[in-house]
Amino acid sequence: MASMNNACIVLILATLLMINNADAADPDIVTDFVTPTGSSPADIDAAFFTFTEFRKALFGAPSDASPFKVTKAGELEFAALKGQSVSFAALQYAPGGINPVHIHPRSAELLIVLVGKLKVGFVDSNNNLFTKILEPGDVFLFPKGLVHFQYNKDSKNHAVAVSAFGSSNAGTISLPNTLFSSGINSDFLAKSFKTDAETINELVTANMG
Amino acid sequence: MASMNNACIVLILATLLMINNADAADPDIVTDFVTPTGSSPADIDAAFFTFTEFRKALFGAPSDASPFKVTKAGELEFAALKGQSVSFAALQYAPGGINPVHIHPRSAELLIVLVGKLKVGFVDSNNNLFTKILEPGDVFLFPKGLVHFQYNKDSKNHAVAVSAFGSSNAGTISLPNTLFSSGINSDFLAKSFKTDAETINELVTANMG
Amino acid sequence: MASMNNACIVLILATLLMINNADAADPDIVTDFVTPTGSSPADIDAAFFTFTEFRKALFGAPSDASPFKVTKAGELEFAALKGQSVSFAALQYAPGGINPVHIHPRSAELLIVLVGKLKVGFVDSNNNLFTKILEPGDVFLFPKGLVHFQYNKDSKNHAVAVSAFGSSNAGTISLPNTLFSSGINSDFLAKSFKTDAETINELVTANMG
Amino acid sequence: MASMNNACIVLILATLLMINNADAADPDIVTDFVTPTGSSPADIDAAFFTFTEFRKALFGAPSDASPFKVTKAGELEFAALKGQSVSFAALQYAPGGINPVHIHPRSAELLIVLVGKLKVGFVDSNNNLFTKILEPGDVFLFPKGLVHFQYNKDSKNHAVAVSAFGSSNAGTISLPNTLFSSGINSDFLAKSFKTDAETINELVTANMG
Amino acid sequence: MASMNNACIVLILATLLMINNADAADPDIVTDFVTPTGSSPADIDAAFFTFTEFRKALFGAPSDASPFKVTKAGELEFAALKGQSVSFAALQYAPGGINPVHIHPRSAELLIVLVGKLKVGFVDSNNNLFTKILEPGDVFLFPKGLVHFQYNKDSKNHAVAVSAFGSSNAGTISLPNTLFSSGINSDFLAKSFKTDAETINELVTANMG
Amino acid sequence: MASMNNACIVLILATLLMINNADAADPDIVTDFVTPTGSSPADIDAAFFTFTEFRKALFGAPSDASPFKVTKAGELEFAALKGQSVSFAALQYAPGGINPVHIHPRSAELLIVLVGKLKVGFVDSNNNLFTKILEPGDVFLFPKGLVHFQYNKDSKNHAVAVSAFGSSNAGTISLPNTLFSSGINSDFLAKSFKTDAETINELVTANMG
Repeated sequence: MASMNNACIVLILATLLMINNADAADPDIVTDFVTPTGSSPADIDAAFFTFTEFRKALFGAPSDASPFKVTKAGELEFAALKGQSVSFAALQYAPGGINPVHIHPRSAELLIVLVGKLKVGFVDSNNNLFTKILEPGDVFLFPKGLVHFQYNKDSKNHAVAVSAFGSSNAGTISLPNTLFSSGINSDFLAKSFKTDAETINELVTANMG
Repeated sequence: MASMNNACIVLILATLLMINNADAADPDIVTDFVTPTGSSPADIDAAFFTFTEFRKALFGAPSDASPFKVTKAGELEFAALKGQSVSFAALQYAPGGINPVHIHPRSAELLIVLVGKLKVGFVDSNNNLFTKILEPGDVFLFPKGLVHFQYNKDSKNHAVAVSAFGSSNAGTISLPNTLFSSGINSDFLAKSFKTDAETINELVTANMG
Repeated sequence: MASMNNACIVLILATLLMINNADAADPDIVTDFVTPTGSSPADIDAAFFTFTEFRKALFGAPSDASPFKVTKAGELEFAALKGQSVSFAALQYAPGGINPVHIHPRSAELLIVLVGKLKVGFVDSNNNLFTKILEPGDVFLFPKGLVHFQYNKDSKNHAVAVSAFGSSNAGTISLPNTLFSSGINSDFLAKSFKTDAETINELVTANMG
Repeated sequence: MASMNNACIVLILATLLMINNADAADPDIVTDFVTPTGSSPADIDAAFFTFTEFRKALFGAPSDASPFKVTKAGELEFAALKGQSVSFAALQYAPGGINPVHIHPRSAELLIVLVGKLKVGFVDSNNNLFTKILEPGDVFLFPKGLVHFQYNKDSKNHAVAVSAFGSSNAGTISLPNTLFSSGINSDFLAKSFKTDAETINELVTANMG
Repeated sequence: MASMNNACIVLILATLLMINNADAADPDIVTDFVTPTGSSPADIDAAFFTFTEFRKALFGAPSDASPFKVTKAGELEFAALKGQSVSFAALQYAPGGINPVHIHPRSAELLIVLVGKLKVGFVDSNNNLFTKILEPGDVFLFPKGLVHFQYNKDSKNHAVAVSAFGSSNAGTISLPNTLFSSGINSDFLAKSFKTDAETINELVTANMG
Repeated sequence: MASMNNACIVLILATLLMINNADAADPDIVTDFVTPTGSSPADIDAAFFTFTEFRKALFGAPSDASPFKVTKAGELEFAALKGQSVSFAALQYAPGGINPVHIHPRSAELLIVLVGKLKVGFVDSNNNLFTKILEPGDVFLFPKGLVHFQYNKDSKNHAVAVSAFGSSNAGTISLPNTLFSSGINSDFLAKSFKTDAETINELVTANMG
């Protein structure tokens, strides 16, 4: 194979990467697990099934001094999860930190508080609000596709939680970003939220990166 | 059965209704269709498969002079759809009318413009905004679980569209209502949207029924 | 890459096309949408989510003077639908035009009459026939996998309908074609339909292209 | 409970039967198996998982001297199958017997010839016919939702086959019955099959019970 | 309703309980959540979505001095999970404690070590063994349907882990119990494991309650 | 294409094979069937849908004089099954032959006895054992994911059965091999099965290839 055209290899690898991207899906796999494109079964060892990024993310306040930090263990970060219909996220809250209103389009979320107390809540599609203050060890369900949030009301102590999802890539729609930093027309947003463009523009300015 | 206890009938019917409520689901049915609880197959005729509420909803401006009106044909309104994984909504826009930012938690939406022009848009989970001005006959896809909206920018003429869903009950999360009229704590919302409680309270006042 | 072997590019593209063909599936995708093979996310804009072939197909009689014309908006015609579990078809009937007996193997069909009147019907698996005459705005469900048909009985006016499916590629089995122009042995068909080979041969001659 | 109102019991059982009918579905069960309505787990023994109607149906020609006989082992005949997504049918062909053109709306069919030779075939949705003459032990796949048939061309010997389905209730649409004995309007059928009403009426007369 | 027959109420409630039992399933629900049979939506508050049994189960060694203790948060223990396709288990290991070889028939398992070190492993269907020693914060995937186990090799310190499943009721098949305390015939087991009945009987004696 | 680099072709084919391996899945396909990677639709004829390896496997004792022989017709052996959610296995038992305790991780098993008598059994997740002696023609269900086995107790005559699965690749976990020939640590197994390392080592020695 020594004489092989390098450009050809490059193009093949590029197209394979595109296939991989285009093909991301959550089917009922008919193998034990999915060997990544470009790997052979012989390349798979126990490290493939192990994810170590939570060693820090589950213990202590956010390492980057942000008020809230999420570390995901989904199929994009942990390839073994592909087709296994389960994933995790580690959630770290500084004192007073919040996880703003958001939605996961592809799964319910089941959260456990490991450290601290959290106020959590969601709104169902009949506009009913459900909120609860959780203690360490408490488990809370955010049902599929609903707007929800968490809040560490403690102004002195951090909190940590871990959440499980019934999809290998549950997705996240952050509503402050989606609504006010994606470029939706301000007049339209003003009509949607029954306010004026000035208020919307303030919100846009505040939420833009 | 003349001697039967009426209270007993009442209780049975009540419990059957509860079962129906508790059991709402979108499984792959293993019958041609699902006979409603309390009906026998002999009760089913062609009317069961026919829905007539769109006779008005698909033609003309909203009948109630509202700026926007949605008429659903899902399994709650049209029982034959149970287990068939498809449903419709008729959308009528007065001149300048909008369908505010919202999410369907259980399906993509495929919209056709029948009358007028609509500006439509959605935001993906990477915060990219996609907008398009549609003409009569144009079809637009709002992918599963993403925030989206429509706007009839024409100040003189109404518009009509029909949308299809790949679920018999796609659900709707109206974001103005969910965020600002469900009772979420104002301080929390202010933190979420990086604004002050005063702005939030204005939004709450505007969006409360 | 100037020196690259053209034949190699051709072969890669050919194999990618085959993969696409071999891999067509309706899974629960774990991305917002599926970027087509050979595209990068940066190539995707709002046009990708827009389908314009219905601009003519939803308004007026069949453009080609045929008695019946179907225009599909499924994942083969509208790539954005891949993995979204929903699609449309526009149905145009000349005066007296029919959509002959057929089956969609992968979805129920939910039809709306937009213009004219249609007689519609289906047969369930217990051999019960359900028929209905529909007016503009009427919605009718053809349940999953059953034989069904539509008929514009009006000899002077055309009719138009739009149908939604809970699959991105519902498929169509035309029974006249399947039975009488696919080459099934005439003696076998005569036995199946309890008639003689002569009658079958007449049907074959009539239905062959 | 001796004084209990018998009519009440009757009504309860009737409504339970209706629930059972209305609720038939093929979900991914989250129990080992589904205990039938009205049974308790303690009532379940090995007989519940055993079906004996094939003792005759798999051996010999049709017992009722008919040219073709199907004996189903689906969830309607064998309750343990509910939610297990698999079922069987035993197929017995007299010499020259046929299983006429038909469709299973909810599953592919995988057939094994146990005795004799069978000519089998199906037509795909591109109108391609695939036929094969099978010997004892041969396995043949009829893909999901396609028109298919079997024929024992041997005029002296019977044949036996067993088919498996990936649904607990695959359903059967017999095309001769569906088309010509369900009461579809003859003029419509004549238009569909490009023939005259006289030919259709002959087919109807031949296929009516 | 004062005159109502109590026996009738009892029978209705009994049958409802049976329906509930018979109907346990993991469908894609078409409501936000499933209201339990016998409850009305008005009965649902935030407590319904909260599970507190992990307050002890996630912190410290097994409370009952057993070598290993599992506390489940699935739909049988936490009704809100019905139809949400996700659940948790808390796993406590005394020093030297093991979770013996077992299988979950309905989901992959995604485990996080919270306290201590665990040796974990599974065997794929090609008989390959994958083992790993995990530290606090490490996440490990046991793929769907495979035999797996955990072991706290530390003879002085306890360990704690939490596992997530992509089903609301993943199920557990304990292999020591299933094989050696369910009553499978000893001669058959001896043949299966290529040993003698004496060895099997020792194993049965050791594993019987 | 004569000048094309052969190494390039080799690499393309190799990567295509890897894609095929990585992508094995059981989705609801949206085509009639799945054309294998590297084939075009024009290459598909009736032979593609025919599997002939059961001509011997369904008739007579195991050809290789082994006590038990399984011949699979799943998607790995019979490519047409991909995406069709159904498969077969032929099971041949010499006199006294057994199919040892095992699990199919992806499907229930529905077995028919064709020749001889079989003792069959399974253990549910509540540790209940269900056993039955089956006669020719008897059908038995092994529910999804449970430990099960078959035994030809007849010391003089062979037996034959055929099993259907509701997956194109149900998988098999042989418990003797998984437990005692995969290399799981003997001390751990001794703890799991409440026995000593000596007993485990005897089992390992007996079950190693």
